[in-house]
Amino acid sequence: MKLMKVTDPEKVLELITEHFSALHSESLPLEKAGGRCLSDKIEVPEDVPGFDRSTVDGYAVAARDTFGSSEGVPAMLECVGEVLMGQSAPPIKNGQCCLVHTGGMLPKSADAVVMMEDTDLTDNMIQCFRQIAPGENVIHRGEDLKKGDTTLFKGHRLRAPEIGMLASLGITTVNVHRPPLIGFFSSGDELVDYNTAVLQPGQIRDSNAPALQYLAEQNGASVKYGGILPDRFETFFEKSRALLDETDLLVFSGGSSVGSRDYTALTMQKLGKPGMLVEGISIQPGKPTLLANCGGKPVLGLPGHPVSALNIFAIFGKAIIDRLTGWNRPGYDPTVKAVLSRNIPSRSGRTDYVRIKLEKTIDELKAVPVFGRSGMLRTLSEANGLLIVPSANEGLNAGETVEVKIWE
Amino acid sequence: MKLMKVTDPEKVLELITEHFSALHSESLPLEKAGGRCLSDKIEVPEDVPGFDRSTVDGYAVAARDTFGSSEGVPAMLECVGEVLMGQSAPPIKNGQCCLVHTGGMLPKSADAVVMMEDTDLTDNMIQCFRQIAPGENVIHRGEDLKKGDTTLFKGHRLRAPEIGMLASLGITTVNVHRPPLIGFFSSGDELVDYNTAVLQPGQIRDSNAPALQYLAEQNGASVKYGGILPDRFETFFEKSRALLDETDLLVFSGGSSVGSRDYTALTMQKLGKPGMLVEGISIQPGKPTLLANCGGKPVLGLPGHPVSALNIFAIFGKAIIDRLTGWNRPGYDPTVKAVLSRNIPSRSGRTDYVRIKLEKTIDELKAVPVFGRSGMLRTLSEANGLLIVPSANEGLNAGETVEVKIWE
Repeated sequence: MKLMKVTDPEKVLELITEHFSALHSESLPLEKAGGRCLSDKIEVPEDVPGFDRSTVDGYAVAARDTFGSSEGVPAMLECVGEVLMGQSAPPIKNGQCCLVHTGGMLPKSADAVVMMEDTDLTDNMIQCFRQIAPGENVIHRGEDLKKGDTTLFKGHRLRAPEIGMLASLGITTVNVHRPPLIGFFSSGDELVDYNTAVLQPGQIRDSNAPALQYLAEQNGASVKYGGILPDRFETFFEKSRALLDETDLLVFSGGSSVGSRDYTALTMQKLGKPGMLVEGISIQPGKPTLLANCGGKPVLGLPGHPVSALNIFAIFGKAIIDRLTGWNRPGYDPTVKAVLSRNIPSRSGRTDYVRIKLEKTIDELKAVPVFGRSGMLRTLSEANGLLIVPSANEGLNAGETVEVKIWE
Repeated sequence: MKLMKVTDPEKVLELITEHFSALHSESLPLEKAGGRCLSDKIEVPEDVPGFDRSTVDGYAVAARDTFGSSEGVPAMLECVGEVLMGQSAPPIKNGQCCLVHTGGMLPKSADAVVMMEDTDLTDNMIQCFRQIAPGENVIHRGEDLKKGDTTLFKGHRLRAPEIGMLASLGITTVNVHRPPLIGFFSSGDELVDYNTAVLQPGQIRDSNAPALQYLAEQNGASVKYGGILPDRFETFFEKSRALLDETDLLVFSGGSSVGSRDYTALTMQKLGKPGMLVEGISIQPGKPTLLANCGGKPVLGLPGHPVSALNIFAIFGKAIIDRLTGWNRPGYDPTVKAVLSRNIPSRSGRTDYVRIKLEKTIDELKAVPVFGRSGMLRTLSEANGLLIVPSANEGLNAGETVEVKIWE
């Protein structure tokens, strides 16, 4: 029996970075670009704010007019008007001031704002009870964003803060990388469409198709479903070649039979150069995973068991999608701390992904492993997190504090 | 000057749970239901798998026929055929076996599968080199999901594993809660549409509208934008009442002027009973936040500064959306550990959200605070995480290991 050649998970992620690159870019209206990655850097086209603004409600003054003033000896300033929001400020002269609201524009020759509560108004004269420094309570023109600076770089992913920042600059279209269209096949003669109401003996529904489609969509990709491939090589290969031509990434969700796996591997070898990169991954669940580079396009062969397929796609499928969308992925893995409820044995030399159900007790958060075979989706839907046991580790003990990755 | 009455962030979250509930339910095709929450429990309509299946490639046998066999004294069994994938298995008799592939159906009267590598085939006879127990290498009918059991409960959010599980059961439509439609207004005379190419003196673009819209969409809601409200109470109130009628939740992104804040508060009081719940939150940035219950619908008044508005919406806006979509939110907050690069002062009695830029050095991950006024979106787009300093804490020291919440 041929032994499977396995690759470390970290090495697989490196191969993905090395072999594939961002898809071409397109121009999108800003309000459609959330989640996308910039294909060009962005230079600031104008100063933000475009004028000196007050950060408080108060009176715009020339700071020097307040020097020396105090509770006992207030400065007296003539109030000559009000800055209306969204309008130019009227000018002031020496010894004058002007009512200004938070966000309002400073008059020319004013350089600070004295807060309302530090003043007293009688008729059109204010008493100013403290001295303030030039620039106090003012955000200066260009202080947030300076014209000509580079504010975002190629590969930056647009979240809400970036959308807001670009909107404040009047940038209404952006150049971003296109997200991948994934060609998706299931295979195996035992599979039938998941919409099949009544199963014949020996049949099971193709549950990976809708599950993986949702996972792909959650990560910004879209899916073109190619159907269920029969265990016959010619059809398998021809249909795969046709779908790969139309898409950016091909994914096979293998049947569990030997036939499907063999045809998947053979097809991946023949679809283009350089061909197979990974014939197995030292990970559990999900070891029998295939990855190829077929003429520059990634082709991923998932294990047939649903839990393995989802686990692999959530790690490596996501990494491929991130790569194709041009994301300079920082690769942080946020976790929640919890206390392990029982021992977890693990085999050294393999990274284990243990399904975890988090349970709140009065004084702690418990990490309860959900055991079960990798064919059982119930075990994954009962779990709300994963505990990653690194390959160097030979197991974990009950009572240890562990870090659980949440799967929402 | 009137002091702002502030509420603790935890209390605000409790008020949201207490005052609002899930929107009505709708029936959706499974492939459109990802991310939605069930409005009914789900009972298993049929056993999964629907038949005893092999988990390996091998020969289906009656286990008792292998009892006593070993390397030296193998059992001899007649191979009477092959189980074709997706088809009924042919029957076997005493002393017979049948070739079966992973996932294939067990013949009647077979109760275990001996792995291929533990056998040797000559003509139509196999030698079986070890004895196996009944049930070995078999997943039994109903072992994953048993007919009649409740598998998912009301309020469970559908992720990829649940979509897969339901698909395996042949469940093609599900009853889920409707996601909220958010009515969104900006206000303040200094604001102009963010598509405005050239600003007049004193104007700024309404950057909160597209930023908050994306944040709402990321959390499964959709947004109906009502435009920029002028600082005139009658218009403010009438337009708000009309939009609240059409939507499930109203959000005001306040201008920074006193006028907008006053009109927002007054409108929230008049839109319905019981009215105002929160007049300020002990949080930084984002203290001047308003929350009301207007006839059962939530109305949220965000602070005008963009960073504050995003921070508040990411915490409390998201909590409201989760509540309306019927999510039994577990409330875990996954974090990444990093070493603080400098001291962070904090005021006791207030929860501080400090913007953090994570920087990888050779031997550690550094958490570098990004300081800047809350009007500055640049500070938020430079940050990839938030460090939450609880209200009881009076600050953190450089070199401490802290837990950073990642904002992707």
